[in-house]
Amino acid sequence: MSNTAGQIIKCRAAVAWEAGKPLVIEEVEVAPPKAGEVRLKILYTSLCHTDVYFWEAKGQTPLFPRIFGHEAGGIVESVGEGVTHLKPGDHALPVFTGECGECPHCKSEESNMCDLLRINTDRGVMIHDQESRFSIKGKPIYHFVGTSTFSEYTVVHAGCVAKINPEAPLDKVCVLSCGICTGLGATINVAKPKPGSSVAVFGLGAVGLAAAEGARISGASRIIGVDLVSSRFELAKKFGVNEFVNPKDHNKPVQEVIAEMTNGGVDRSVECTGSIQAMISAFECVHDGWGVAVLVGVPSKDDAFKTHPTNFLNERTLKGTFYGNYKPRTDLPNVVEKYMRGELELEKFITHTVPFSEINKAFDLMLKGESIRCIIRMDE
Amino acid sequence: MSNTAGQIIKCRAAVAWEAGKPLVIEEVEVAPPKAGEVRLKILYTSLCHTDVYFWEAKGQTPLFPRIFGHEAGGIVESVGEGVTHLKPGDHALPVFTGECGECPHCKSEESNMCDLLRINTDRGVMIHDQESRFSIKGKPIYHFVGTSTFSEYTVVHAGCVAKINPEAPLDKVCVLSCGICTGLGATINVAKPKPGSSVAVFGLGAVGLAAAEGARISGASRIIGVDLVSSRFELAKKFGVNEFVNPKDHNKPVQEVIAEMTNGGVDRSVECTGSIQAMISAFECVHDGWGVAVLVGVPSKDDAFKTHPTNFLNERTLKGTFYGNYKPRTDLPNVVEKYMRGELELEKFITHTVPFSEINKAFDLMLKGESIRCIIRMDE
Repeated sequence: MSNTAGQIIKCRAAVAWEAGKPLVIEEVEVAPPKAGEVRLKILYTSLCHTDVYFWEAKGQTPLFPRIFGHEAGGIVESVGEGVTHLKPGDHALPVFTGECGECPHCKSEESNMCDLLRINTDRGVMIHDQESRFSIKGKPIYHFVGTSTFSEYTVVHAGCVAKINPEAPLDKVCVLSCGICTGLGATINVAKPKPGSSVAVFGLGAVGLAAAEGARISGASRIIGVDLVSSRFELAKKFGVNEFVNPKDHNKPVQEVIAEMTNGGVDRSVECTGSIQAMISAFECVHDGWGVAVLVGVPSKDDAFKTHPTNFLNERTLKGTFYGNYKPRTDLPNVVEKYMRGELELEKFITHTVPFSEINKAFDLMLKGESIRCIIRMDE
Repeated sequence: MSNTAGQIIKCRAAVAWEAGKPLVIEEVEVAPPKAGEVRLKILYTSLCHTDVYFWEAKGQTPLFPRIFGHEAGGIVESVGEGVTHLKPGDHALPVFTGECGECPHCKSEESNMCDLLRINTDRGVMIHDQESRFSIKGKPIYHFVGTSTFSEYTVVHAGCVAKINPEAPLDKVCVLSCGICTGLGATINVAKPKPGSSVAVFGLGAVGLAAAEGARISGASRIIGVDLVSSRFELAKKFGVNEFVNPKDHNKPVQEVIAEMTNGGVDRSVECTGSIQAMISAFECVHDGWGVAVLVGVPSKDDAFKTHPTNFLNERTLKGTFYGNYKPRTDLPNVVEKYMRGELELEKFITHTVPFSEINKAFDLMLKGESIRCIIRMDE
């Protein structure tokens, strides 16, 4: 691969020209990485709701043409000046948020919200020179969350690239770049259920199923799935969910239903829907004295979390998490090893696979709610 | 003392006959302890806001005549059937909440909210037989939170009595029965600031000063006191408070003032006022990524805690605490040892002393805001 270093690479990318319109496979020019950057050859990428959300651009300022994609696995093609932790040939996962290693957040054991490389959905350019590395016939194409993995080659800040075990299958571990780690870490790193404990998971989409997987790995004995769609329970069983509550089936608030099921409340809860009512229920359904609720889902701008303060004074804890509190460079290699040891099961999240040329099918599957994760094979 | 065991004891008690009216020193009859109970000779007691609050009886159903008092130190006079962890002569602190040792809360490492003996301010009788152990000429006088320490002798559930080092001076450690442990434990056990960190304490009354003392003991380097009364800052310096903010001095929310002072927020905050606005400010003033806010103050019944959920998602934690998360029997002896080793300074909390015959002076001092803790000497 070294003969392309320093050169512009021409390759295929799926370009979103307009909000909500099918992506178009185009030949794009990918500039070489500048100082502190890495150019990756993407082998596998998967589709996440966040791609769809910004592609639909219903709630934000539209930024087009743009190359989406932020869950992926690839190989380092070349590195820019000053990059020391990666070299050509390394197997790597790009991540939508980063780890500069120097800021107070990176230096804190407790935070992964890097000041420099924290997710920025509005920025469509590289952080150092505010320019794009993608172009078509000289016209720049915008980046997405610093990753833009719907391209055979992409340029990423080196702080957003985790070097992983080269033996790990990239068509599986690519899903760790976003949603799966978000749910998994919310449970394992933040809620921290003890073996034998009870955990309620609100929302059984990909993130919620990953939160349930975290509870299963932690040895929770009761994993209660909460979802408005009862048919999701069957699939959720594979992820350790062994009880199910549909709030629509009850005449009282779901927190009361759960408190009755569990003699006062669950030990832990994880909220993965983004609905403000689910957030309140997730907090109020944990047991007094020791209950911990963790918020994961992204709320609407105008939402207000509201509860009686006595719910806190009775020794409940409410926390939020971002990307499961994983630091991308430090922690992702260990999550990959957890998969390699067979503790974390990734295969069950992967319900579909499509060739890159049919990437729009992945969007259709997600919009219909048929897929958990659809892997896109870049070489086809 | 053993010659009084099993007998009714006649002694002096300060009886509250009516809401808000001065207490009257009366001769009362104190029945012997029944199974699972302990009769204590009280040597020192101190006055806490909670006594005053229920004596004024403005917000609750009045329950009179009643013997108030719940911060005290004494000696076990006799024990009822089945009491094994205490014997006559033991030095002890009665506590308004208990530790049965058998319930899920007592068995949890994380909770001190005993199912059986959790504080109950409405109950004026002993838990086992729903009767009072106090009477005057055959007419029962109500208990208060299971302690009623404004009496030379009192009967307490054995689960609410901590056996302590007999060398500890009871006229000092008696203040650990309530307010001081509440604030101290909120910081040491729940907020857990690291050495060198920043802590904001909302409210510089006795509980807030104890929270600051906890921050000082934990090695916090910036301890920011927040209070509407600027004159409190001078005294608070003794408790480690080294910066001060009066919300009235600023045109913007105090959480913004604190965020500017601390480059984004404090590492920890402890709310000791009970004002809902202070609770919200205490939460919103902690740093994203790692900030932890702890609620201590008791809110009004109709208050709603309200914040944007993104404040949680940015990795802030909100917890509440009850009695500083101390388990009375298990943990109080160790707090006494912390004082005996000179780590915890109790003397500075004790601003006044009065003889029992002048107990109403202690109420006056507290109502005027002149005292932190006033010790009442029972033998005078």
